[in-house]
Amino acid sequence: MYIGIDLGGTNIAAGVVDRSGKLICKRSVPTLKERHYSEIIKDMAALARTVAADAKLDDTDIEAVGIGCPGTIDSARGMVVYSNNIKMHNVPLADEFRSYVDVPVNIENDANAAAYGEYIANGNGAKSYIFMTLGTGVGGGIIINGQIYRGFNCAGAEIGHSSIVMDGVPCTCGRRGCLESYASVTALIQQTKDKMAQCPDSVMHGWVAKRGNVSGRTSFECAKMGDKAATEVKEQYIRYIAEGVCNMINIFQPEMLVIGGGISKEGDELLIPIKEFVKRNDYNKCMPRTQIKIAELFNDAGIVGAAMAAVNKA
Amino acid sequence: MYIGIDLGGTNIAAGVVDRSGKLICKRSVPTLKERHYSEIIKDMAALARTVAADAKLDDTDIEAVGIGCPGTIDSARGMVVYSNNIKMHNVPLADEFRSYVDVPVNIENDANAAAYGEYIANGNGAKSYIFMTLGTGVGGGIIINGQIYRGFNCAGAEIGHSSIVMDGVPCTCGRRGCLESYASVTALIQQTKDKMAQCPDSVMHGWVAKRGNVSGRTSFECAKMGDKAATEVKEQYIRYIAEGVCNMINIFQPEMLVIGGGISKEGDELLIPIKEFVKRNDYNKCMPRTQIKIAELFNDAGIVGAAMAAVNKA
Repeated sequence: MYIGIDLGGTNIAAGVVDRSGKLICKRSVPTLKERHYSEIIKDMAALARTVAADAKLDDTDIEAVGIGCPGTIDSARGMVVYSNNIKMHNVPLADEFRSYVDVPVNIENDANAAAYGEYIANGNGAKSYIFMTLGTGVGGGIIINGQIYRGFNCAGAEIGHSSIVMDGVPCTCGRRGCLESYASVTALIQQTKDKMAQCPDSVMHGWVAKRGNVSGRTSFECAKMGDKAATEVKEQYIRYIAEGVCNMINIFQPEMLVIGGGISKEGDELLIPIKEFVKRNDYNKCMPRTQIKIAELFNDAGIVGAAMAAVNKA
Repeated sequence: MYIGIDLGGTNIAAGVVDRSGKLICKRSVPTLKERHYSEIIKDMAALARTVAADAKLDDTDIEAVGIGCPGTIDSARGMVVYSNNIKMHNVPLADEFRSYVDVPVNIENDANAAAYGEYIANGNGAKSYIFMTLGTGVGGGIIINGQIYRGFNCAGAEIGHSSIVMDGVPCTCGRRGCLESYASVTALIQQTKDKMAQCPDSVMHGWVAKRGNVSGRTSFECAKMGDKAATEVKEQYIRYIAEGVCNMINIFQPEMLVIGGGISKEGDELLIPIKEFVKRNDYNKCMPRTQIKIAELFNDAGIVGAAMAAVNKA
């Protein structure tokens, strides 16, 4: 059996995963990310032992541990080269983890791990597969011939940092106009706030007053009530996502493209207009089309993918 | 020995290429693309025999023929699925060619072939390699682990049809804002004409009057003479290319990215500002950087790449 660990800014999640990618059990603990990373690694190892015990496994039953971690990861050396979210710079994460649980350890960028998890679970063995996750940022994963594509320096697949509006909105990466600045949930919240400021009569004001804050759901929920301003925000936001999806399709013509992240729970509300946009704008007019889908594992994708990347490497 | 054929809208070029990718000799004839494709294929076969004779080869010395062809190509079936430039729709090009010269024939999209040719000649075995060619359009090729990446449907690598200006200039593909609409030489010529209309005092008017028409060189040459309007056109054009290059780097983090097409003969004039833009805007701040280079084979890339794709397949 394998253990997958998804190291997030808020929680550390770990699960036992079998060779086929099935999640047997899982648990999570708070990351408390302001701590020194060595404390966090200690907690990751303790959590791994706890989920192993939940599944009645001891150390000898654990074939390998896979860790998905934010930032630039050198999988070959087991190093976190740089992570801004959880402060790490040239940390030998695999070795430090092994000082607690002495099994093979593979580390992977968290978006790559999530992509791989979704691919294993629902990719139907697609020869080329793109995963786009819409959350605080826009993350991505590229799976080609069943392998995670990392770029020569392990820093690839930053599809959220391809620009769609040259010289547009400033991005956290320092550039302008990145897909992330338009299609992340962070961007949607800002787009919602901007529209609310312009439209004092929108029902979004009442919705937000009841719930305390603007969220990624505000425009989607208020659009369902027929609010014009909310509908405009929602449609424009989906248009931004569609622009990015269509770019990825023209570049990769992947067999499958999957959209994940919390907002993807909107399902067809999101998927249908994206598919329509792509159908009209895809460069490919005469060959089979990319299958565009919503992610299915959601929060478990990182655990499963981290574990399966370890299976793949083991 | 191998024969590579580059089927272009203006000329058919063919050459004898050895196993290592060295071009031994070459010739070309006009395509006369308005003819029925069967006439064009007949001329391609005749040209292949002529270059073979130039190299003192007979049919038994030809191990395989590779053909680079515009449009959507199904290499596995040897079919031109669709080509707009030279009118072909579901043409079994490989089989038709073999009716004249009965050797293994591999067909490839022309941009993929050119990318592969440059890769073989000057790619230093890069694990990931992007080729961007700036001409009438913006073509692309993606080489991963030494293999041409085609997408699941052979229609991939259309990097010229990823948008950089959402809802921007209409593109020939029907979409708006594609890189091709800003970074092709066709776009540069339009940008030059627009600026000339705005700036009646620009030295570009005299330059064009002498030469008869606006070309891709107009702004570059007049900028060298210190003309302000020309410098603005040139700098903005390079900025568009850089936007596309930076997008490809953030997505792929390729070991090498190569810029080809006629305009790439401007060399450092083009390359230095692109490198500077990428250095400032690349998402990757802590891992080794993509090597950005100018293509070296120019017009021979298609011949060499088509032949070498046949070697690779043979």
